[in-house]
Amino acid sequence: MIYLDYCATTPCAKEVIKAMQPYFRDQFGNPSSSHVFGRIAKSAIEKARSQVAMLLNCGPAEVVFTSGATESNNLLFLGLLLDQHEKRKKIVVSSIEHKSVLEPARFLATRGFELVLLPVSSGGIVDLDAARRLINNDTALVSVHAANNEIGTIQPIKDLAEIAHSVGALFHTDATQALGKIPFDVQDVDCDLASFSAHKCYGPKGIGALYVRGGIKRWKWEFPFHGGGQENGLRPGTHNVPAIVGFGEACNLVTENLSDNKDNLFALTTVWRKEIMKAFPAARVHGCDRLTLPGVICVTIPSLMADMMTIGSLEHCISHGSACNSGAISTSHVLRELGLNDQEAESTIRISINSSVPDNAISSLIKNIKKFVIKDGD
Amino acid sequence: MIYLDYCATTPCAKEVIKAMQPYFRDQFGNPSSSHVFGRIAKSAIEKARSQVAMLLNCGPAEVVFTSGATESNNLLFLGLLLDQHEKRKKIVVSSIEHKSVLEPARFLATRGFELVLLPVSSGGIVDLDAARRLINNDTALVSVHAANNEIGTIQPIKDLAEIAHSVGALFHTDATQALGKIPFDVQDVDCDLASFSAHKCYGPKGIGALYVRGGIKRWKWEFPFHGGGQENGLRPGTHNVPAIVGFGEACNLVTENLSDNKDNLFALTTVWRKEIMKAFPAARVHGCDRLTLPGVICVTIPSLMADMMTIGSLEHCISHGSACNSGAISTSHVLRELGLNDQEAESTIRISINSSVPDNAISSLIKNIKKFVIKDGD
Repeated sequence: MIYLDYCATTPCAKEVIKAMQPYFRDQFGNPSSSHVFGRIAKSAIEKARSQVAMLLNCGPAEVVFTSGATESNNLLFLGLLLDQHEKRKKIVVSSIEHKSVLEPARFLATRGFELVLLPVSSGGIVDLDAARRLINNDTALVSVHAANNEIGTIQPIKDLAEIAHSVGALFHTDATQALGKIPFDVQDVDCDLASFSAHKCYGPKGIGALYVRGGIKRWKWEFPFHGGGQENGLRPGTHNVPAIVGFGEACNLVTENLSDNKDNLFALTTVWRKEIMKAFPAARVHGCDRLTLPGVICVTIPSLMADMMTIGSLEHCISHGSACNSGAISTSHVLRELGLNDQEAESTIRISINSSVPDNAISSLIKNIKKFVIKDGD
Repeated sequence: MIYLDYCATTPCAKEVIKAMQPYFRDQFGNPSSSHVFGRIAKSAIEKARSQVAMLLNCGPAEVVFTSGATESNNLLFLGLLLDQHEKRKKIVVSSIEHKSVLEPARFLATRGFELVLLPVSSGGIVDLDAARRLINNDTALVSVHAANNEIGTIQPIKDLAEIAHSVGALFHTDATQALGKIPFDVQDVDCDLASFSAHKCYGPKGIGALYVRGGIKRWKWEFPFHGGGQENGLRPGTHNVPAIVGFGEACNLVTENLSDNKDNLFALTTVWRKEIMKAFPAARVHGCDRLTLPGVICVTIPSLMADMMTIGSLEHCISHGSACNSGAISTSHVLRELGLNDQEAESTIRISINSSVPDNAISSLIKNIKKFVIKDGD
């Protein structure tokens, strides 16, 4: 069984497991306790916060730990929804956002907000001209992901941040898929808010962060959650110490290894794309070449029974649409935005690799795909 | 260093660590993926859900995994706040609830809800006569914890559920401190909703649950979070597989061992209380004897510098007020409700033990406490 679904989730790195291990049982204190056990735990989470901040190129006080990007995104939209001072009532998000941005935005649209979806090119890149036209003085928030989770396209978030700021709107980016695959620097992007999940970059599940520029004193809206005051009140609840430590170590590994890894992976991805196109000349690889994350190959192969392969294959783990649809099989909104019809979407798979996939993986994958392609006369 | 703060958090049981271990790196799939890696992860979380349900005496579909009780409580209050169909606008909670109930309730009170706080006796038990008077046809929700986190008092939640139901209100209980220390059976209590955190009963941090009677189809209010549809939409976001598995195992251990453990711990707690009263005859142990959780001793010892001891002692880890106040030192609202003045509260400590504390712990603790008692003439 070869795992080729690293966009859905990644295994914890060995270093991450090693870093977390003491905090389950030996140094198990609650960081909110003032005694020694508590202080040891607190110092562990503050070290991790610095490691995350180092990777993002921000101050530690700008990192708010959450249970993951879905929570980070929801906190943000709920904060806006519950705020009583925000006069701007327009939200602008791309039409191919992850559901944890799109669905909260749609919820706000049922509660007095105007929701505008930014169109994308057939290559899956947000249309900047449309953005300039649609983002205006009524806009409270622009939220566009750094890279798409289904097709891997890298978005022009620097430009979008500039457009948002030019009208006084805040700019948020869900950088979950980008983190660890390409450089992501909050100063460079000039975003106000950004969301992350550790488990997409070899950290543990159940932990992530919300970057808040300027820290909590710059948080503009309401706090949706209330309780014991952790994370300066934005995210109360006992800190998940081992997971936070693991996230810190995962970020540390990215800081150390990203520049090598990404070039290797980009080269490998190019080889895989070529091999797939050679084997299936009628296939269409989605995305925009160098504007697509290394490691992500989303491809429509005519007559491929993608669902059958995803569910039925015992040789390769690949994905059909987003894993986050939680079992429900429906045409991906991302593929629909690219102009694919239902039949094309049903023949589309996402392959997501890392540098450690076995050498023979691409040839065995192609052989396997062929088994799930309906031949003329079948 | 002897840890005597098991109400703040507990170490993971060895069995819990062993159960979680494979899911960090070997079986690391995303349960929302339809391939084999995903299905293995999904079956692990469904096994854990059954283990939690077995302990609570409910159906697995009634268990919604969250990041912990603070989130469970907030989801509930936010759901009520955001609902547009609920006509009842009164919330009734006890005056000694954990902040993750009290603060969301206070937030709702700023948004058109009427908040009523149920008074407690000097022993820290909710006044049922007051409850009968204050809970009426306007009441949407009654929320009273199963046991208090600072003084350990066990609340008459069965009676409160009955009172709530008699006027058509829902009854919620934050059972975080009760779970694992005393039997807690949702059928017996007849609650509609209940919150739990794994890390209070030898499971991992960062995971907990919200019990929803009848499952998601009986969820009465709005879904505050939106995204990938996990947990039937109530709690979207990639499942924290290892932590869920660990929570399941922790519940399994409670199911197997609670009846023995609680009697042993109750006996030990009685010994500790007596020893403390013998050493400090002017001390006042809070709570209500058999109506207090085994393992919890909250005591006011005149002239004890509780803060100094909590922070400065290198021999014993104890707590002064709730650990969840996140470092802020202020008189606990619970102690204030019991009628303690600031000076008395400043001389109050919470000792929380389990059956594995060393035999000499109580004598060494008493010796240590004496060092922090200001003597006449100091």
